[in-house]
Amino acid sequence: MNKNRLEAFSDGVFAIVITLMIFDIKAPIVPINELSSALDSLLPKFLSFILSFVIIGVYWISHHNMLHFIEKTDRVSLWLNLLVLLTICIIPFPTSLVGNYPTAKASVIIYGLTLSSVNMAGTWFWYYCSKNNRLTSSKLNPAFSRKVVYLHSSPVVLYLLAIILSFVSIKVSYAIYVFVPVFFIVPNALLKRLFQNSYID
Amino acid sequence: MNKNRLEAFSDGVFAIVITLMIFDIKAPIVPINELSSALDSLLPKFLSFILSFVIIGVYWISHHNMLHFIEKTDRVSLWLNLLVLLTICIIPFPTSLVGNYPTAKASVIIYGLTLSSVNMAGTWFWYYCSKNNRLTSSKLNPAFSRKVVYLHSSPVVLYLLAIILSFVSIKVSYAIYVFVPVFFIVPNALLKRLFQNSYID
Amino acid sequence: MNKNRLEAFSDGVFAIVITLMIFDIKAPIVPINELSSALDSLLPKFLSFILSFVIIGVYWISHHNMLHFIEKTDRVSLWLNLLVLLTICIIPFPTSLVGNYPTAKASVIIYGLTLSSVNMAGTWFWYYCSKNNRLTSSKLNPAFSRKVVYLHSSPVVLYLLAIILSFVSIKVSYAIYVFVPVFFIVPNALLKRLFQNSYID
Amino acid sequence: MNKNRLEAFSDGVFAIVITLMIFDIKAPIVPINELSSALDSLLPKFLSFILSFVIIGVYWISHHNMLHFIEKTDRVSLWLNLLVLLTICIIPFPTSLVGNYPTAKASVIIYGLTLSSVNMAGTWFWYYCSKNNRLTSSKLNPAFSRKVVYLHSSPVVLYLLAIILSFVSIKVSYAIYVFVPVFFIVPNALLKRLFQNSYID
Repeated sequence: MNKNRLEAFSDGVFAIVITLMIFDIKAPIVPINELSSALDSLLPKFLSFILSFVIIGVYWISHHNMLHFIEKTDRVSLWLNLLVLLTICIIPFPTSLVGNYPTAKASVIIYGLTLSSVNMAGTWFWYYCSKNNRLTSSKLNPAFSRKVVYLHSSPVVLYLLAIILSFVSIKVSYAIYVFVPVFFIVPNALLKRLFQNSYID
Repeated sequence: MNKNRLEAFSDGVFAIVITLMIFDIKAPIVPINELSSALDSLLPKFLSFILSFVIIGVYWISHHNMLHFIEKTDRVSLWLNLLVLLTICIIPFPTSLVGNYPTAKASVIIYGLTLSSVNMAGTWFWYYCSKNNRLTSSKLNPAFSRKVVYLHSSPVVLYLLAIILSFVSIKVSYAIYVFVPVFFIVPNALLKRLFQNSYID
Repeated sequence: MNKNRLEAFSDGVFAIVITLMIFDIKAPIVPINELSSALDSLLPKFLSFILSFVIIGVYWISHHNMLHFIEKTDRVSLWLNLLVLLTICIIPFPTSLVGNYPTAKASVIIYGLTLSSVNMAGTWFWYYCSKNNRLTSSKLNPAFSRKVVYLHSSPVVLYLLAIILSFVSIKVSYAIYVFVPVFFIVPNALLKRLFQNSYID
Repeated sequence: MNKNRLEAFSDGVFAIVITLMIFDIKAPIVPINELSSALDSLLPKFLSFILSFVIIGVYWISHHNMLHFIEKTDRVSLWLNLLVLLTICIIPFPTSLVGNYPTAKASVIIYGLTLSSVNMAGTWFWYYCSKNNRLTSSKLNPAFSRKVVYLHSSPVVLYLLAIILSFVSIKVSYAIYVFVPVFFIVPNALLKRLFQNSYID
């Protein structure tokens, strides 16, 4: 299978997941005088929807950045990519859980575990493809490939921290979940320094 | 990321949102002798579905018109485009709300705010891309780019008017929501005059 | 907008509609000893799903056949195509209705009206594009274009007949709904005769 | 219709089916102190989701492998491909059934019948296209085409076995459902031997 087809299929899955989460937020069916408070109670669902939308956006862009350097595919990389997509597909479930039970430790833990699984699968996918430039350009700098491994797996540490801290304060956990995508979206010195050198040997 | 991929991904989101709204209109499950009146009560849901379908159609076409002039993408434009898609993804929620509570001010207000957010995000996206022809062709006429900014942001004024007038008459608000897409679909003198000059310097 | 983009967007909508109908058939949630009869009662929903799947397949192929001859698009053709897609998007609703109330006249009538609307919108789209070869190749034979108009609009007559006959026997109506796609799928003398001449002048 | 369009449409259906199954797993709405046990009871649904995800992944890759050798399409192959997609679209229903009633024979049977129907439709599609290289390259080795027929239809035997064994032990049936995709994913001697010879005469 060529890379473009893999990319188009993955894009399809990303687009469907990102779009469908809104359909978990059902318009209330209550007597009209209770509508206002029913809408208020949907606020956690909206916030969790927006957070997951942004996080999936970050994953989508990072998936593309990886594929940019990958030149071909093989049987294993196809299945590792499907593993990444599987973890992406799961995200709507903990998103809905956080929306329904924003103050439950179980929500925070399952959300963090799901995001961790995406990052672990993505790291595995990249590591397999870039190891000895198996499927990436032979000119790709190994030091760059290693940096991508560190960068893509580092959120797992933060997510596990968020899970542990949920036993102390759930607000801190949410702050971590918000911080991670913000770090990847807002240009910052750390990201710049990591990638200041050429990608190519 | 090249522009075609951005366009394909955006098209995917548009296609999914526009298609899925029908699934909010559930076939009734009532005793068969109440079927007829149960179907009648679905009329507001059908009308709001059709209105939103047409409005999303207008947004889809205007999104393409913008991308037609954009030649490349950067990190910021990717995220502004995702912001546009986020606001598009929200539309099914107020559509469903209007369908369930056609006479509630809350429905009219949330519908208007959502549409406003699409136009504001779209305007921001275009402004960022076309400012000093950052991502558009260097031959693109700045006066034309400014006109697009005005045209794409102008519905916000009408939507805010609709929101305010909902305190007087909800029918007037709906008339405004119907008028805006009709204005963009039906060829008219104002649209022609705006774009009578060449796009290119 | 070029034709390929229109085609890709339309394909997206067709693929989503055809795929999502299965999600209207919910696995039962009943005590396990009632499972068997609960599954039996889903039979009408399965049959209506399969019928609509096949009918949408016919529409998808005929949409492609039309686009095959269309060389460019304009503002009006874009909106007529969106009208076709709107009618396609509605199909899951009467499908669900037929599944829930297979013996209700209302189901048969709404199903027939929806299918009629698809054929009428499709005919309008083709008529607009092919009239004086506005958007089709200048070599396209006008007699061929007219035949397509007749062929694509003729099911409307049958669907209206099915609606009228539903007051006599609903089974006859369903037989007509089954006959139409079968006619277009199974190679037959009539279809062959219609298109035996060259498409090109 | 050219082959690329068929492939893109099929990929769309595969991507939608694979992505949407997660939305069958609804976040519970129970008092917060019952949340933990409510989540536990979702485990069968998660397992059946993951099994079907992987199985659809296998079908997707095998669909591509087939199309790789197919050079053109005709009316019949279009409809046989739509038949394959129809059976793929049905998978979410037995998946949901297995998730709701993991210990019911009916679930195991309907799951096995659905998977069998996918393999039978796929085999029919391939047989039609490759018979006398009707739509495949004239250089394709007929012995290779026959091997694909055997390989693609062989799971039907196992699935029927699983159905029969469900009257003895449902666990054995599930073991078979897990074994089949694992066999196609994990590189093994049998698969290698089957395809050790050149595809081309």
